[in-house]
Amino acid sequence: MANEKKFVQKITSRNVDFAAWYTDVVKEAKLCDYSGTKGCLNYLPNGYAIWENIQSNLDKRFKETEVQNVYLPILIPESLLNKEKDHIAGFAPEVAWVTHGGEEKLEERFCIRPTSETLFCDLWQKQVKSYRDLPLIWNQWNSVLRWEKTTRPFLRSREFLWQEGHTIHATYEEAEERTKMMFKIYHDFVTEDLAIPLVCGKKTESEKFAGAQDTYTIEAMMHDGKALQSGTSHFFGNGFPDAFNIKYLDKENKLHSVYETSWGMSTRIIGAIIMVHGDDSGLILPPRIAPTQTMIIPIAEHKEGVLEKANELLNKLKKINIRVKLDNSNKTPGFKFAEQEMLGIPTRIEIGPKDIENNQIVIVRRDNREKIIISFDEIEKKLPIILESIQKDMYNNAKKFLDSHLYEANSFDDMKKIAKEKIGFIKAHWCGSEKCEELIKNETDGFGSRCLPLDEQNIENKKCIYCGKEAKHYVVWGKAY
Amino acid sequence: MANEKKFVQKITSRNVDFAAWYTDVVKEAKLCDYSGTKGCLNYLPNGYAIWENIQSNLDKRFKETEVQNVYLPILIPESLLNKEKDHIAGFAPEVAWVTHGGEEKLEERFCIRPTSETLFCDLWQKQVKSYRDLPLIWNQWNSVLRWEKTTRPFLRSREFLWQEGHTIHATYEEAEERTKMMFKIYHDFVTEDLAIPLVCGKKTESEKFAGAQDTYTIEAMMHDGKALQSGTSHFFGNGFPDAFNIKYLDKENKLHSVYETSWGMSTRIIGAIIMVHGDDSGLILPPRIAPTQTMIIPIAEHKEGVLEKANELLNKLKKINIRVKLDNSNKTPGFKFAEQEMLGIPTRIEIGPKDIENNQIVIVRRDNREKIIISFDEIEKKLPIILESIQKDMYNNAKKFLDSHLYEANSFDDMKKIAKEKIGFIKAHWCGSEKCEELIKNETDGFGSRCLPLDEQNIENKKCIYCGKEAKHYVVWGKAY
Repeated sequence: MANEKKFVQKITSRNVDFAAWYTDVVKEAKLCDYSGTKGCLNYLPNGYAIWENIQSNLDKRFKETEVQNVYLPILIPESLLNKEKDHIAGFAPEVAWVTHGGEEKLEERFCIRPTSETLFCDLWQKQVKSYRDLPLIWNQWNSVLRWEKTTRPFLRSREFLWQEGHTIHATYEEAEERTKMMFKIYHDFVTEDLAIPLVCGKKTESEKFAGAQDTYTIEAMMHDGKALQSGTSHFFGNGFPDAFNIKYLDKENKLHSVYETSWGMSTRIIGAIIMVHGDDSGLILPPRIAPTQTMIIPIAEHKEGVLEKANELLNKLKKINIRVKLDNSNKTPGFKFAEQEMLGIPTRIEIGPKDIENNQIVIVRRDNREKIIISFDEIEKKLPIILESIQKDMYNNAKKFLDSHLYEANSFDDMKKIAKEKIGFIKAHWCGSEKCEELIKNETDGFGSRCLPLDEQNIENKKCIYCGKEAKHYVVWGKAY
Repeated sequence: MANEKKFVQKITSRNVDFAAWYTDVVKEAKLCDYSGTKGCLNYLPNGYAIWENIQSNLDKRFKETEVQNVYLPILIPESLLNKEKDHIAGFAPEVAWVTHGGEEKLEERFCIRPTSETLFCDLWQKQVKSYRDLPLIWNQWNSVLRWEKTTRPFLRSREFLWQEGHTIHATYEEAEERTKMMFKIYHDFVTEDLAIPLVCGKKTESEKFAGAQDTYTIEAMMHDGKALQSGTSHFFGNGFPDAFNIKYLDKENKLHSVYETSWGMSTRIIGAIIMVHGDDSGLILPPRIAPTQTMIIPIAEHKEGVLEKANELLNKLKKINIRVKLDNSNKTPGFKFAEQEMLGIPTRIEIGPKDIENNQIVIVRRDNREKIIISFDEIEKKLPIILESIQKDMYNNAKKFLDSHLYEANSFDDMKKIAKEKIGFIKAHWCGSEKCEELIKNETDGFGSRCLPLDEQNIENKKCIYCGKEAKHYVVWGKAY
């Protein structure tokens, strides 16, 4: 039993130092690590496999709504990036510049894309002529680069992986509907597949994407009470397309502007999975997204028939499309248990001589460590049900945590007190002025506006928590990653 | 009928000007186009969907042999690129250099990866300690950048998409076996899924990858007789890992070098699909890789019951996982036929009032335009068989073309004559000297060595076709893209 203790001892306790716990889990579960390229990550097999499952689940949802995948260049000419003024102002300080190709100095610099709105608009300007060409509903899975000063695995790095969807439409209404549709897809994906509850809504002016008219966001609460912006959907109106002169002729041959959206989700979401679900033994992965859903661990595998039975089980489960592995390595069962827990594999199956005698197996849930003994013959029926239970329970537990850490403040003193004494989010009324927003954040040690919930409660007769003027919004405030 | 003629007239005839035909097909089938970033492509939905299917089919084959996917940074520090001398010599002239991050000039330049051997070795140097850490069998799907002077869609561009696999092993034999295994996977994938016949073997010294000990290549013959290198698998021995000081301790605690491989296939292969299978009506896609396998085209769709029946068919085929679409757009059937042919969709199904009366449908094969009339009730049984027939026939036709354009030369005069008068490959003996190799290429207007086939015929008593000295190889020569 020495081995597995050593394994767990490598992790700082979550309640002692959350940041250290996070870094330890990322390292011990071998999800990613720092590369020799400062500020950039190596996504290792265990981490990348989670991203692959996120990709395939999310991509399926996209394609059900007629999204088509494309791939646009990694380099943006400087003149192109400069075309939309808010956009360039937002991104210029943090892009990497290519100045030389081979031995030659280039006539014009290129930046490595920090995001691709300008590339999509440049392409569309050439392609779109008539109403018949619309809408265009495109997405790409790629990497982008922003020259960040500080780096944390998955949460902030110079290069990160994401998808960026870009669409144009003939009408304002259709584009707005698409913005909300993708916002809903992110919400459904994160709550259903990642078992992460959310607070959702619009961003304030100061928190919007550079150049956007509206930004919708989904915000998750980490176990330390801080917020992680987990996906955003932007409505551009026609500001961006007009800057690029994208116009179409309608049926009557009249020229019109187009309306644009973009929306993205990145590898940050892996950070959310870790910080919402993980515990002192390591990761806990939601079954729908776990690269391995079940680890079979034979007990006393040298005894006759054990490995055969374990393999029989492996094949049974593969046939019903459970993502299953058999750990027949030369380690103690205790070490294997600890490793399976560290990796967050939702269930393990123990099978030994006594189990075989009784025609049974032992299933242990990762989330609550419950032991479930079932007949060997029932496994194909019961395991999928157990996995769905885990998925549901993980969501419900995280939802309980979120709900019990979502406070309401009725005065600014009240808000400051909560901000000081509690972890979590605070709901409070706000007048809409950027000045108040900034002062609230400064005086609460970082509680910025996370979002303006769409299901805003009645704000009639309510006052701004800071200045006392008439309230325009009931805002969710929180510290953020 | 005016419409579809106009559609086809946009394409230059393949026999009149092969290069123009290629460019026209790429454009009219909307696969990709040039971007505002010089030398880089926009991969449009029709082209990217082919790449997605290539990815998923190839990735499945990789994973069946224990390949794990990862993602390493896009930027390589200059000092890291310089670590292996042959490698830097091969790539330095064609990399793009990042010199500024935001407003700041960087202390060290970074290049955008032209390939990632150095990044993998740098990571492994930190990770590998013991024999227990080996082998590592990793792959990434990414883009790379090489500062090319000339550009052709899919065939040559500054940025291109590919996969690059990188592995290290405890023994020479295991690494060599992996090199050959991936070579075989490429061969099987291209012949089975893309219906493209191949000539395969090792590269000569001068054609090897920069830093490799052996390079295995699969070479396809385009319809103009030129070769397209379609996938390569490299064996590095321990030259590369030694340059990076990657060592492991064996069970007896002795220190050893590791052995490395890498292997890649890129979006070039889409160029091969076009140039092997296409015709004057456009693309012809092998069913296994076609984003849409069947297009349902209703005839007289305004007539009662036609659209209902077409939709019934659509749902039937979706249920058996045929990639099927229904074209109920406001175009003439003739235009729709021409468009389906341009896009290379392997089959179309025509269904009109007369067909419904007779409880039948008409299937038209894209490859040979054969019309097959079958009962409506048999479609689920027959269509998969027809698609497999198309796949097989496409391979067989391409194989006939390859075999009938693979010449043997017994003297250099003979070789020059064939090179001048015919299109295709030429087999001829060679002494192994780089000088002869170069002169053969120069004096035949470009017939370079494509590969040294592994199933080399007896070379005993054979002479080099150029210098007359003893032959060491029976080489396949050809002009190349």
